[in-house]
Amino acid sequence: MELIVQKFGGTSLSDAQSRGYVLRHIIREFKLGKRVVVVVSAMGRSGEPYATDSLLELVRSNGNALPGRERDMLLSCGELISATVLCSLLHAEGISAVALTGGQAGILTDDHYGSARILEIQCERMLRHLAEHQVVIVTGFQGMTRSGEITTLGRGGSDTSATALGAALKAGVVDIYTDVDGILTADPRWVSNARPLKTVSYEEISNMAHNGAKVIHPRAVEVAMKAGIPVRVRSTFSEGEGTLVTHAELLKSQGVWYDKTVTGLAHVRDVTQLAVTQVEGPADLQLRIFRAMASHAISVDFINVMPTGVHYTVSGHDASKAVALLRELGFEPRVRERCAKVSVIGGGMNGEPGVMAVIVEALTNSGIPILQSADSNTTIWVLISEEGLATALQALHTAFGLHLAPDRGH
Amino acid sequence: MELIVQKFGGTSLSDAQSRGYVLRHIIREFKLGKRVVVVVSAMGRSGEPYATDSLLELVRSNGNALPGRERDMLLSCGELISATVLCSLLHAEGISAVALTGGQAGILTDDHYGSARILEIQCERMLRHLAEHQVVIVTGFQGMTRSGEITTLGRGGSDTSATALGAALKAGVVDIYTDVDGILTADPRWVSNARPLKTVSYEEISNMAHNGAKVIHPRAVEVAMKAGIPVRVRSTFSEGEGTLVTHAELLKSQGVWYDKTVTGLAHVRDVTQLAVTQVEGPADLQLRIFRAMASHAISVDFINVMPTGVHYTVSGHDASKAVALLRELGFEPRVRERCAKVSVIGGGMNGEPGVMAVIVEALTNSGIPILQSADSNTTIWVLISEEGLATALQALHTAFGLHLAPDRGH
Repeated sequence: MELIVQKFGGTSLSDAQSRGYVLRHIIREFKLGKRVVVVVSAMGRSGEPYATDSLLELVRSNGNALPGRERDMLLSCGELISATVLCSLLHAEGISAVALTGGQAGILTDDHYGSARILEIQCERMLRHLAEHQVVIVTGFQGMTRSGEITTLGRGGSDTSATALGAALKAGVVDIYTDVDGILTADPRWVSNARPLKTVSYEEISNMAHNGAKVIHPRAVEVAMKAGIPVRVRSTFSEGEGTLVTHAELLKSQGVWYDKTVTGLAHVRDVTQLAVTQVEGPADLQLRIFRAMASHAISVDFINVMPTGVHYTVSGHDASKAVALLRELGFEPRVRERCAKVSVIGGGMNGEPGVMAVIVEALTNSGIPILQSADSNTTIWVLISEEGLATALQALHTAFGLHLAPDRGH
Repeated sequence: MELIVQKFGGTSLSDAQSRGYVLRHIIREFKLGKRVVVVVSAMGRSGEPYATDSLLELVRSNGNALPGRERDMLLSCGELISATVLCSLLHAEGISAVALTGGQAGILTDDHYGSARILEIQCERMLRHLAEHQVVIVTGFQGMTRSGEITTLGRGGSDTSATALGAALKAGVVDIYTDVDGILTADPRWVSNARPLKTVSYEEISNMAHNGAKVIHPRAVEVAMKAGIPVRVRSTFSEGEGTLVTHAELLKSQGVWYDKTVTGLAHVRDVTQLAVTQVEGPADLQLRIFRAMASHAISVDFINVMPTGVHYTVSGHDASKAVALLRELGFEPRVRERCAKVSVIGGGMNGEPGVMAVIVEALTNSGIPILQSADSNTTIWVLISEEGLATALQALHTAFGLHLAPDRGH
C-alpha cells in the first residue's frame, strides 16, 4: 500500500476555509487507499496568536533571556496546536487520526536547540498507527533528544520533517503544499508572466532555494535527494499537480527532460557590494578580510579575488558592520548599496557556452550594467543595481523563453 | 535547605504587571535560600488566546470530535507557554531556571485523558536542578503516562500538581497564589464584610471547596492532607500571608485554634429541588429514581427519603432531564427552580447543639424560609430560594460573628 507524506504550512492552516482545502487533500489520498502521514507547521500567518512569530513575541520583551531549551519547548506548541486541530477536523469527518509530537513520531535529534539535526527516525509507532488505517499527523519542525528534551529544527524545519519522514518511511512521494501552484519560473510579483514548472531537478530547486526563491527549505531538498524520494510542490488551494522534484537523470530517462537550458530565475535583494582595492598592501590581504568577516558571523558572497584587491558582497543588514571591520583593518572600501543578485538556473546549461552571452545581451539591451558575475555548472549569477531588478528579471525571463508553453514534461 | 512549592494561576500570569508580582514572590523565597519549585497554570483569563478555554475553542467548532488523547496534547500547550514565559522572565532577572513538562518533572499518571490520576512522582530530575540552584518551573495540570503520552488532570489540576509535588518533594509549605487575600469567611461579592481567615483546617477548606467556594481544588486538599503538607492560600498581588491550611489537631496544639464554632459560609446557586410524594407506590420507589439519575450521570444532593416520598436537588442545568426521567418512571414531581444551597462550615461545631438554632433564628428573622436542611459533624446545609441568598448570607455571617476580628490565630 503506497505511503504518502503531505506537508501543510501555516498559511494552509490559518482559517476554516483553508483547513477545508487541507482536509480535501488528505481525504482524497486516504480514500485512494494510501497510508497517509501529514506534517503540519504552526498555524496562522505572522501576528496570529499561534504562529511561531507570535509565540516568540511572548518572550521577546524579556530581552530574549530564554535558554534555547525552553525556547524550543515554547515554539513546539505552535505545531502541537495545529496537529490537534487537524486531528479534530479529521475525526469530525469520520476519519480516524492520531496526532504525534516529533518525539512520539520517533524523530530523534541532537541537542542543538533551535537548529537541531535529525539523527534517526524510529518508525515503529507510525507504522503501527498506519496499519490500523489511521492518518498519522506529525508536528513538523520538531523532534526530541534521546533524553526526552523537545528540540526544533530551525526555520523551514517542517519541510525537513516531511522529507526526512518520507525517506525513513520510504514514501512514494512527499507533497509540500503551499499557497502557489508549484515552482514558478520566477517570482510572479516581479515577472508578470512567470509560469509553474511541471518538473524540476533536486539540484535546480536547491539552487533556487539557496538563491532567494521561497519554495522549499534547502535542507529538506538535500534529505529528499539523498534518499531519492520524489517531492511535489503544489497548491493547497487547487487540485493542480504542482511541480515534481526528482533526480535530473530520472527526468531525462523518463523523457520528461525538456531541452531548455534554463529552468528559472531567482533573486536576492538588498545586497551591498564592497570593494577593497590597493596596489600596495600586505600579502595576506584576503585572509585578513575574510577572517574578520567570519569571526563576526557576516556571510560573504560573490567573492572575487584579484591581484589588486578583493570584491565581495554582504547582506544589506550586515553592511555597516562589515565596513567598520574593514576600516579597523586599515582599508577604505568602495561601498555600493542596494544591489540585487539575480540567479539564472538550469540543469541543462552545463557546458552551454551561449548562456552567458544571452544574459549579457538581454541586460545590455535593457540598459542594465552587470556589476559582477559568477557561475557554476548549473547557475549563473549576476549582480546588478536593485533599481534595475524588475527590468532585468523580465528581460532574462523573455530571453530564455521561460514564458512560453510547453515547459518540461509536456 | 527548605523546599517550597509555589503555584500561580492563570490570572496571576495574565499580563506583564501581574507577572511582575509573580516574579517578586519567587525571587523573595529564592533569595531566602530556599529551593523553589513553581507550578503554573495556563496564562490569561478566559477568552485570551493561551487560556485553556481558548485552546478548547479551537476544536469546539468541529463538534468536539477530538479524542481525549489529542485534547490533552492541545491543552498541555497552555501551561507549556506559561512555564517558558516565566522562565524567560527569571533569566532576565539573572536567576537560573528550568521549565519542565509534567512528564519531564517525573509526574507519571494513568491514561484517563482529561482526568488522569497521578500514580507516582519521580523527583530525581527536579532535585538535580534544585541542587544546582535553579528554580524549577513545572507545567501544572499535566503529567505523562509510562508510555510517554501527555495527560491532563482535569480542571483545578494545577492545584493538585502543586500539592502532589509538595508531598513528593517533602516541601515545608505549598503556597497557592490567587487573586484574593486568602480564604474568606464568605464570598465577598455577596457578603460585603467577609474577612480573610488566618487559619483553616483541611477538612474545613475541603468542605468549602465541595460546597461552591472557589478557593482550591478538593483533590489538591486531599493530597496535602494525606501527606500533612501545610498549604497557604494567598494573594499574588500583596505581601499578605494569606490563610494557612493544615490539620485541625495541629492548629489546636499550637494554640491557634480560635473557639469560634463556625469558620465560614459557602454557597451554590441554581439548584432545583424535586419532590416525589405519593402515598401509594412501588416499594422500590427510591431505588428506581436514583438508579435513573445515576445512569444519566445526574448528580443528586440534599437527598431526603421519607416513608411518603423523596426530596432531592439537582443542578439547574440537569433539571429538565431529571424531570423527564421521573415522568418516564410514572412520577409527577413537584419542581422548585432557582434555589440556593448555603453551607455553614466549622470544624468546631461538632456536637454544638446551638448552631442549628442560630441558623433558624437568623433566617426566620430575615423572612427566609428553609426549604430543606442537612448536616454533618462539620457542616450544616440549608436550601433556600435563590432570591433570598444575599440576605441569608449576610444574616448568617453576622449571626456567627464572622465579620468580627480577631479571627482564629490572633
